[in-house]
Parts: sequence; structure tokens; C-alpha cells
Amino acid sequence: MISKSNIKRITSLQQKKFRSELGLFIAEGTRLIEEIAKSDYIKVEELYYTSQWQNEIGLHPAIEEEIALNEMKKISSLTTPSPVLAICKIPNPLFSNIDFNNNLVLALDTIQDPGNMGTILRLASWFGVANIICSNETADAFSPKVIQASMGAIARVKVHYCNLAEKLESLKSTIPVLGSFMNGENIYNIDKTPSGILVMGNEGNGISHNVEKQITKRITIPSFTENNSNVESLNVAMATAVILSELRRKNR
Amino acid sequence: MISKSNIKRITSLQQKKFRSELGLFIAEGTRLIEEIAKSDYIKVEELYYTSQWQNEIGLHPAIEEEIALNEMKKISSLTTPSPVLAICKIPNPLFSNIDFNNNLVLALDTIQDPGNMGTILRLASWFGVANIICSNETADAFSPKVIQASMGAIARVKVHYCNLAEKLESLKSTIPVLGSFMNGENIYNIDKTPSGILVMGNEGNGISHNVEKQITKRITIPSFTENNSNVESLNVAMATAVILSELRRKNR
Repeated sequence: MISKSNIKRITSLQQKKFRSELGLFIAEGTRLIEEIAKSDYIKVEELYYTSQWQNEIGLHPAIEEEIALNEMKKISSLTTPSPVLAICKIPNPLFSNIDFNNNLVLALDTIQDPGNMGTILRLASWFGVANIICSNETADAFSPKVIQASMGAIARVKVHYCNLAEKLESLKSTIPVLGSFMNGENIYNIDKTPSGILVMGNEGNGISHNVEKQITKRITIPSFTENNSNVESLNVAMATAVILSELRRKNR
Repeated sequence: MISKSNIKRITSLQQKKFRSELGLFIAEGTRLIEEIAKSDYIKVEELYYTSQWQNEIGLHPAIEEEIALNEMKKISSLTTPSPVLAICKIPNPLFSNIDFNNNLVLALDTIQDPGNMGTILRLASWFGVANIICSNETADAFSPKVIQASMGAIARVKVHYCNLAEKLESLKSTIPVLGSFMNGENIYNIDKTPSGILVMGNEGNGISHNVEKQITKRITIPSFTENNSNVESLNVAMATAVILSELRRKNR
């Protein structure tokens, strides 16, 4: 039996304000929670499950409780609740631990759509990008929508929020800062960049003016259309897929 | 003033059954309709707009009518209606016009999510794929959701529906048929394939058994994760982005 005040506390985590206050976020679904449980990076603090859930991973946090389906419906953010919901600690990865000299790092400048954010997390995980640095205006990686869309990638990729323009300014003298624009160097022609930061911009406005000033190399995905019209565009998640693939291929 | 029976006819086009019966589909939004109007491929038959719309493209089909905002709300499939709605003729591209010998053709085996379908249309347009052949079980390219997600790419890419396994069987002796699997040849290592068919499979089940038998080369996007776990996956739209990019790069 889950108390009214507990229901209120858990559902409050659907809002960023309360996630920040409590330092907690919600993860729902068997596979997602299994992925999180495997990682050392994210700690499950509480577990709520219905009789349908088979705990095959031996996950036993301090607080765990079997609840009724109607109770699960009350705490779930999903239209169709899954048999298990975990409350996890929001990790606090150290910026100083990012090894910019030997890795590719992704930087997001005000990506706002949670679906794009989750997709980009999955791409980062697939292409071995261990750290993403985000402008403070970027969608919260720990919102329920991003967590669900990330399919567990949130447990493998460290997301850092910062004043992106300032951070890049302090890094650009030693680290290449690549930015995706409509008018840059053809990505298929650029040299190897075994380390570097790849900046992807906002869905509608692209890379902001202050961040643009920190870019050391402008890059572009060329279009292969016959009438190379500029009305066409790839969305930011698709562009991220193509550029990460090309950078990784080059540096194999 | 738009009649009740006309409202009924227009909204019926949100369903595949009536689109097939009437051979018509709906496009909404200024930019989308401008893209369609530019193409020779899709013909606008009727145009409904509110006083907010500036017809800057001189589009004047046989039937055009200024209607009130509350009428637009009745015929629109969008939560927030745009100032213009067009009824267009579903094109009937000829399979026999596809030049398989000199082009890359995309084949979709039961892609079901309209968002993925729209994204794949945009990718095809960007990467110069003029024809997509789809299994009959693939999402309808002329559904309102796909049309909106395609951002006008529907006017530049010809979509054909067919019995995919049969079609591929008749082509595979002369045309390479590439299929995306978890266990194929690394896409970064495969040879040039200036022409060929790239088959992408269903979101959950991948390429179906009957279609798999027609594949002449299995390909894979390698993961760059440290612990190359097979729990991870790219969704079908992301995988399409990466593979099209790599095939186009190789054949520049």
C-alpha cells in the first residue's frame, strides 16, 4: 500500500523543479531498469512493482514494495504502465573527469525536443561517446520522456549541463570544436579528428551566436539531391547520426 | 462556406480506406504545400485557406475556397490548424520506370511507425534516393502523420507498394540486394555499390523471413561502445541515416 503523500512525491518527479530539489528521477519498464541496474553510474534508490514483475536481476534497493496495478497507474507517467517503476538518483558527473584530449565529446546547444534528446543519447552510446555537454537551455536528460526515449543509454552516457559558450571558450585553444552548419566543410572530406567536440544546434535556430564564436571548424553534411534546394534539411538527430558515424569511421 | 458533406469527405481522408477509394490525400501547412506545388509529381486538386494565408506561390487549382477558422478546425487533422489545407491526388508512380541499374533504391519491409516513415522519406530525399519500394504492410506514405513528418519529401521521392519478397526475387539476380542485420559485413568495409537496393526491416522484428531469403549481402553498422552489448540498438530511421550516408560517400 502506497501512501498518498508518497504518490504525490513520486509524480512530482515528472517536473524538473522537483527532480532538482530531490535529486531523483523516474525510470519505468523492465528493460530500461535492467540497463540502469547494470551500470555503476546510476543508483536505484526505490523500486515499485506489481505482481507481474519478475525481478530477474536481483535488484534490491533499500526501499522496495509490491503495489497494486491501480496504484501503479497513479504513480506512472506512461499511458500504459509497465510492471515496474524505479526511483533513481540523478548522477552528478564531474566535468573535470572528461578526457577531452583522447575522446570525441558531443555538445548540445539548446536541443529542446525530448524525443531528439533521447535519440541523441542512444546515438552517443552506440558510437562510444561517453560524455555529452549541454547548454543549460537544453532539454533535461532526466525527464520521463527523455529517459524512455533513451532506452537505457542514460546509464551509459554522462550528461553535463553548463554555460556552453564559456566552457567551449576555455577549451577551444587546445581542442578542435566542430560545429554543424549549412555552409561548412563537407564532412566526407575533413581530416581525422581523433579527439574533439562536436556541437549540434537547436532544432529551429541552429547553433546560437555565442556558441558559434567558439567553433573552430564548421562542417556540413552534403545533400545528394539533384536540385540541391535549401528547403530540405535533416533533423538534428538524423544529422547527429550521420556525423558521428563519419567521425568514427575516420578514426577507426 | 464549406458544406457538411464536404467536411465529411475531407475528414474521411484521414483514413486509408477512403484515401484509396478517392485517390486523394491531405497536406496541411504553408511550407509543405509550397513544396508540393513546386513538384510535377503531385497535383493539388483543392485548396482551402483562411484569411491568414498569403498565397505567394500563385497556386490556383480548379477548386479553391477561403473558409473561416472554425471551418478549418473542422477539416484539419492538426491540433493547431495551419492557414492552408490542400487535397492532392495520390500519385501512381510506375514500377517499370525505376532504373535499378544506375541508382540506389530503398526498400522498406513493414516499417510501421508514421514518424519513422516520414523521417525515412526525408533521408531518402536528402541522400538522393528517388524511389522507395515498400511491402504492402508498410505504413501508408499518404497518411496525415507521415505527410507532416516528411516535410515535403513526399513530393520528391516516389513511394511504391508491392509484394516486396516477390519483387526482390525477380531483381536479385542482376541487382545487389543489401539488407541491414545485426550480423552482417561492417558497412565501413563493404565495396562500392553504385546501384543496388537497401532493405530496412520492421522496428521490432527486423527483416521478415521471406524478404531475408532475397538478400544478397547482409550489412551491419558496427557499434563503438566499449562493452559491445547487444541490448543496444539504433532505431530504423537512425540506421537508415547512417547506411545511406555511408553508401553515398563510397559512391561519390
